[in-house]
Amino acid sequence: MKEKLALMIPGPTPVPERVLQALGQHPIGHRTPEFQDIVNKTTELLKWLHQTKQDVLTITGSGTAAMEAGIINTLSKGDKVICGENGKFGERWVKVAKAYGLNVQVVKADWGQPLNPEEFKVLLDQDEDIRAVILTHSETSTGVINDLKEISKHVSQHKNAITIADCVTSLGATNVPMDEWHLDVVASGSQKGYMIPPGLSFVALSKKAWKANERSDLPKFYLDLRSYKKSGDKNSNPFTPSVNIYFALQEALEMMKEEGLENIFRRHNKHKEATQAAMEAIGLKLFAAKGFGSPSVTAIEPKGIDADVIRNYIKENFDILLAGGQDHLKGKVFRIGHLGFVNDRDILTVISSIEVTLIQLNILEKPIGSGVAAAAAILTD
Amino acid sequence: MKEKLALMIPGPTPVPERVLQALGQHPIGHRTPEFQDIVNKTTELLKWLHQTKQDVLTITGSGTAAMEAGIINTLSKGDKVICGENGKFGERWVKVAKAYGLNVQVVKADWGQPLNPEEFKVLLDQDEDIRAVILTHSETSTGVINDLKEISKHVSQHKNAITIADCVTSLGATNVPMDEWHLDVVASGSQKGYMIPPGLSFVALSKKAWKANERSDLPKFYLDLRSYKKSGDKNSNPFTPSVNIYFALQEALEMMKEEGLENIFRRHNKHKEATQAAMEAIGLKLFAAKGFGSPSVTAIEPKGIDADVIRNYIKENFDILLAGGQDHLKGKVFRIGHLGFVNDRDILTVISSIEVTLIQLNILEKPIGSGVAAAAAILTD
Repeated sequence: MKEKLALMIPGPTPVPERVLQALGQHPIGHRTPEFQDIVNKTTELLKWLHQTKQDVLTITGSGTAAMEAGIINTLSKGDKVICGENGKFGERWVKVAKAYGLNVQVVKADWGQPLNPEEFKVLLDQDEDIRAVILTHSETSTGVINDLKEISKHVSQHKNAITIADCVTSLGATNVPMDEWHLDVVASGSQKGYMIPPGLSFVALSKKAWKANERSDLPKFYLDLRSYKKSGDKNSNPFTPSVNIYFALQEALEMMKEEGLENIFRRHNKHKEATQAAMEAIGLKLFAAKGFGSPSVTAIEPKGIDADVIRNYIKENFDILLAGGQDHLKGKVFRIGHLGFVNDRDILTVISSIEVTLIQLNILEKPIGSGVAAAAAILTD
Repeated sequence: MKEKLALMIPGPTPVPERVLQALGQHPIGHRTPEFQDIVNKTTELLKWLHQTKQDVLTITGSGTAAMEAGIINTLSKGDKVICGENGKFGERWVKVAKAYGLNVQVVKADWGQPLNPEEFKVLLDQDEDIRAVILTHSETSTGVINDLKEISKHVSQHKNAITIADCVTSLGATNVPMDEWHLDVVASGSQKGYMIPPGLSFVALSKKAWKANERSDLPKFYLDLRSYKKSGDKNSNPFTPSVNIYFALQEALEMMKEEGLENIFRRHNKHKEATQAAMEAIGLKLFAAKGFGSPSVTAIEPKGIDADVIRNYIKENFDILLAGGQDHLKGKVFRIGHLGFVNDRDILTVISSIEVTLIQLNILEKPIGSGVAAAAAILTD
């Protein structure tokens, strides 16, 4: 039943009915007091979500636009930056930095492994001219979470550097206290923990980031965050925003506020633990290094079979869309998104569907029900 | 009745119910065959709308993002360009060009007056190093339509220059035959003639524009159109697109195809004529020079009263949202949008509401009904 396809990819994530209803309303003028009220309310809720008193700006664009905005508004041509790279998105920020003529040093880890905070510390200690550390918190391509807190701690002790963090699949899923962790730029996107369709992205900036902005000379216009700040201070936008996605944003943020940050983080952590335990109980290998699994996406590396065969079987027979591997991981891993509007039932559903799929493909190594049992032990704990 | 507010601003424009229903569906994965099918179909329909066999690319962003993309993908630092400036959007493209270090010459006309094509010809004839002419077709801020066809003709006879046209409030309202007029870059936005909410924008590029792209050295990543072209050729997007606005786009383009280009243009022209005739019959002055009124928006300059007093009265009492004047025109003009999903009834409604408002404000100079009668003569012709 194609019409009943369930999304269990790391974005777009499932959208609650009340959010879809908000989305499907007639648009209103974006230069009206009514819309200013929406900008005002969503901005306050975004600050709550980011655990910050500083600025959170909303851009009509993807998470990449938000991340690029963070980079090009705080740096200047030739600036020395360190990029963390242990997956597709880490690679992307290296490309952005190079496209703008930054002087890039790369701290690498193999795909599936976390970045080593010590390596950042060593490089930062050696050179006081470094202007930024750019990295991904939850690496969506591999299901690895990096130790952003520790890396940011090293950066905060440096004279000139700021931390620019891609929190696209971590914000709204796990704790990202911007102010407490001294994060300077935090980028995120609507189709993730926010539980709304793609189309808006968010970039939060610390005072230190705005200070860096004063000397930034990279050319920009649509992504010039000074315009967003200036308009934002009047509860407005510099360019026509995605009005209907804003309607959805307000509704979804109110739902998140009702659930509470602690509950949201606990739910995501529980689903991560249950998914990991179930996959191991079934006999499937987790791609991410032990202890570094992302709260929002689990990558699985099946042995002796193209991962897309499993993925396609589940799509065709159980109407669940899982994500495939990207680039050199294509066919090697499949990824289960447990991000946003996901409940315990969804987790049981995907696990039991995977078990039945492995039976049908004649590759289930453990007794049927092992995965469900392992997940149940965590979900009912 | 605030809940029944009707939009008669030049964007966001009214959205048909079947488009809202398409919008409010559950999102789907943007890397699926199902979404590729949507990209394929919308791209074909976009080419039909642009009357072109060349590329039309879709960006998640505002019309400004599309226009900036057109500029920064075809030009290099220091390039000589001519910008036409006779309103707020003309001014904006000068700012974009300067932000990227282009060498800008400006052809100006007073706000309310059209650009003079001869002035472009003279400058182009003098200098074969000019790389682009950048201008706005329908200047939304003043309700003036520029002679894009004639200006583009001069550009097409130049050795190096290309035409980069902001067609945000002309495309889908009046004839913009990209190939026939030798337009090289055509930018537009979803919340205008397309009849869908804001959130997507479109940039069409000619072969000559792609040729110019080969030497373009301005830095970009999110707005790098080579990425969009490469993905677009596989019916995909380089970054997560606004999936739900795409649903709306497909539905709206199919409605436009059903109506037909000629009928759409005739309808907009009739509404422009009816609005202009009615305003003059009421005794209100049109802001745009005679013969240069935009097909999508009519600016009115009332004498002896703040234009926003009229505008606010209509909003409060008749639940019609009109647009105000921008920048130095604030309080001097109000603007009636007759763009997109607008029928004859809407035109009669806004005209009669304006008449009653002027009576209530004690400034109606002509017999009540003069405006409606003048409009009716055109609408029923």
